[in-house]
Amino acid sequence: MSQTEEKLENNADKILAEAVRKSEMIEKDIAVNPKKYRVLTGDRPTGNLHIGHYFGSLKNRVRLSRLGVPTMILIADYQVLTDHDAFDKISQNTKQLVIDYLAAGIEPGKDVCIYPHSHVPEANQLMVPFLTLVSSSELDRNPTVKDEIEKSGMKSVNAGMLTYPVHQAVDILFCKGNVVPVGKDQLPHLEVARLIARRFNNKFCPENPIFPEPYALLSKTPMIKGLDGSAKMSKSLGNTIMLCASEDETAKLIKKAKTDQERHISYDPVNRPEVANLLQIISLCTGEEPEAIAERIGDGGGGMLKSVLTEALNEELRPLRTKRAELENNMDYIRSVLKEGVVQAREIAVKTLEEVRSVMNMEI
Amino acid sequence: MSQTEEKLENNADKILAEAVRKSEMIEKDIAVNPKKYRVLTGDRPTGNLHIGHYFGSLKNRVRLSRLGVPTMILIADYQVLTDHDAFDKISQNTKQLVIDYLAAGIEPGKDVCIYPHSHVPEANQLMVPFLTLVSSSELDRNPTVKDEIEKSGMKSVNAGMLTYPVHQAVDILFCKGNVVPVGKDQLPHLEVARLIARRFNNKFCPENPIFPEPYALLSKTPMIKGLDGSAKMSKSLGNTIMLCASEDETAKLIKKAKTDQERHISYDPVNRPEVANLLQIISLCTGEEPEAIAERIGDGGGGMLKSVLTEALNEELRPLRTKRAELENNMDYIRSVLKEGVVQAREIAVKTLEEVRSVMNMEI
Repeated sequence: MSQTEEKLENNADKILAEAVRKSEMIEKDIAVNPKKYRVLTGDRPTGNLHIGHYFGSLKNRVRLSRLGVPTMILIADYQVLTDHDAFDKISQNTKQLVIDYLAAGIEPGKDVCIYPHSHVPEANQLMVPFLTLVSSSELDRNPTVKDEIEKSGMKSVNAGMLTYPVHQAVDILFCKGNVVPVGKDQLPHLEVARLIARRFNNKFCPENPIFPEPYALLSKTPMIKGLDGSAKMSKSLGNTIMLCASEDETAKLIKKAKTDQERHISYDPVNRPEVANLLQIISLCTGEEPEAIAERIGDGGGGMLKSVLTEALNEELRPLRTKRAELENNMDYIRSVLKEGVVQAREIAVKTLEEVRSVMNMEI
Repeated sequence: MSQTEEKLENNADKILAEAVRKSEMIEKDIAVNPKKYRVLTGDRPTGNLHIGHYFGSLKNRVRLSRLGVPTMILIADYQVLTDHDAFDKISQNTKQLVIDYLAAGIEPGKDVCIYPHSHVPEANQLMVPFLTLVSSSELDRNPTVKDEIEKSGMKSVNAGMLTYPVHQAVDILFCKGNVVPVGKDQLPHLEVARLIARRFNNKFCPENPIFPEPYALLSKTPMIKGLDGSAKMSKSLGNTIMLCASEDETAKLIKKAKTDQERHISYDPVNRPEVANLLQIISLCTGEEPEAIAERIGDGGGGMLKSVLTEALNEELRPLRTKRAELENNMDYIRSVLKEGVVQAREIAVKTLEEVRSVMNMEI
């Protein structure tokens, strides 16, 4: 490891430690003072959501919005283009995301706003001044971007990919979002947003800073592995269960899930990761500890483990799926949710852009 | 010279030859079919305009708009930030530019629109999808950007500088501008706009292309040198005459202009560049050939050359300066011109953005 790499790694450790500390503070305070915060969260419209999203982020969003925290849920349609060639299903996927959100319990309204970011010009415009606040070498160095470029197998990096952390900063800062629920892998992006907020304020409005420095709210839910045992649930790997799947489809998928040779069921994440993962999902549904579930199943073996999981998951998702089916038949309502979200988001964006132009001396 | 460099140079030669050919074709056609074209032109609001701008571009803009060519004049306020730290005078400079334009004979109205680009969010938003259409190495290679980075002495390149050819593409394409009056040094930027138009159409709407590929209208006016003999007139070099200067100030500046030791005045741009430059400016004012002017002055020497120039220039600029003084006293009107320009530009931008979202499948 070179000295520079070591320095960067130490720096990343420091950032992580600070992010964890701050996240815990916010977690305590947010239940008491929900209106002090604005959560910014969202997804790319690349397909329907699965149980990994549900347990990993969707339930948390529902929890936060029910605490009364103002929440902006953005559908990052432009971001699809940074590493996908296909764009034919963006509109359709956007609506499917809204259905998943509402079915999971998100209630759009005064404090909760769902919108595709391509419909908020006054926010996207911030891309132009924000780009002047970061150096091209800072963009080149972003570890998450590097990682995603590697994963996507892109031969040549397009400038949209390179600059998308700046666009994420736009997404967070235009609404003065100060809390962003993320995984640890997303911290470098959040650092770009924090950096841009700081530099903008220092340069243009040191007396009356416009932008808050947003903080991460780190997820406490363990990452769910794929049903095939791979590290991540992902639609493209075919190792997941979609929220929109039927109960029968769910049962079939779980039947094919990978376990191991040992009949007796025990909770041992290190030596028996596949079995531990299934136990973990049951635990997320029922609230019971995975160790206790394992003990109860015991010599019932893999078959019983799977039938317990099937029942627990189908029960957990039943109300969501019922609501989902209703919403699928009411696409006019789904569209109206998005339209209303865009109106709200633009109102916020127009105000921020006016402040920005004022401190930059760009008023007419 | 490496093989790659040679290839690039050959390519640049080919681009230049094609640009010259096309520019001449447009020059012939535009007088006959003005409404087939939309000119996109403009300036950064870094200060008042001088006689270099006046002869080099302003007179041409007035000519084109009087031919009835729809003309968008954008004030590139965001671009100031790509290589300037100061931003305190952007608003003031923007208004001064408008005064210079109107004083020179630009008449804002249905077909002529003056606006600062920071006020057209629906145009700026195009930055986001356009960035996905160029590779970061294409941006790194842009010769004009390389050149400007070198000139500005920037230690670290900010991403606004690196991506500003993409933002120029936004400025040109949002209004479907198909003619851009430029100098040869700006051709690489125009190539980026042409490339983005082509790639966008090929990817998203091959059957019904949205964007025209814009062409350069190359200036026929010889570049005016600085009064000190340096290659370019520039306010920062103090070697120019501002349009807003008084007749006395003009006389004083011309008195200090560099000439040479030889008393007899002759037109010899190679061996007597400073004298030739002053003769050239007289010629631009009176329409007489520089050779003829030189012959008339002859043994009158540098003193007579300068007094002829002073008289010619002050006479040429007199109506402009009278109108300029009036406009300076009517800032409400200047503001209203900008506001009306923004309304017009946004109307155009909203339509284009709708088309763009439609072909990208981003409609709600």
